[in-house]
Amino acid sequence: MMQNGESNPFLINEEIPWEVIDDKLSRQIVGYDNQIMMVKVQFKAGGIGQMHSHFHSQVTYVVSGLFEMTIGDEKRLLKGGDSFYIPPHAIHGCVCKEEGMLIDVFSPQREDFLEPKEL
Amino acid sequence: MMQNGESNPFLINEEIPWEVIDDKLSRQIVGYDNQIMMVKVQFKAGGIGQMHSHFHSQVTYVVSGLFEMTIGDEKRLLKGGDSFYIPPHAIHGCVCKEEGMLIDVFSPQREDFLEPKEL
Repeated sequence: MMQNGESNPFLINEEIPWEVIDDKLSRQIVGYDNQIMMVKVQFKAGGIGQMHSHFHSQVTYVVSGLFEMTIGDEKRLLKGGDSFYIPPHAIHGCVCKEEGMLIDVFSPQREDFLEPKEL
Repeated sequence: MMQNGESNPFLINEEIPWEVIDDKLSRQIVGYDNQIMMVKVQFKAGGIGQMHSHFHSQVTYVVSGLFEMTIGDEKRLLKGGDSFYIPPHAIHGCVCKEEGMLIDVFSPQREDFLEPKEL
């Protein structure tokens, strides 16, 4: 089981719950401590990561699919094998053009992802 | 082109050089700033990540292949879709059993990966 302060060292895909974000997005929080957090995000085509910003540094690896990614004023189409970097406070968002998965990694930890949901 | 302090936001796989580590390992440094760094590591079967430790927190996603991963005293076989977390200073290493790729992410940046090589 995961503890509050940090994850297990070994994170087996089938053993970790997925959280449904909306009908086209779900996420799995995997390795983390206070300093860093990895989150797998599965998108169906048409899924949208709304434009937003945060103080964390972010790096993301595109495992599969096709994503129209906006960072600041620039828009690019990214495919499996590509990756991107979001500086702190930079506004960013994406539209999933073909079903796929992103590996988002934040520093420091996204505390908001670990907080209990409000009813 | 990458700057010293941080990477480009958009990182297209085909545009970024691979660094050969040995005859079974090569790596591609992708998104980074002072706080975080993502590194793709391609392994051929039999490739070894020697046991080592560092002060950085590390999270890794297994894109493909099969890896016998040791973290501290524990050893597990990890496949594509699995991931792992290395606490600061924890000793760790891996043996690649089937060709594949790891996405290593460190916080803070691995400055040693950006330093010019000594002759």
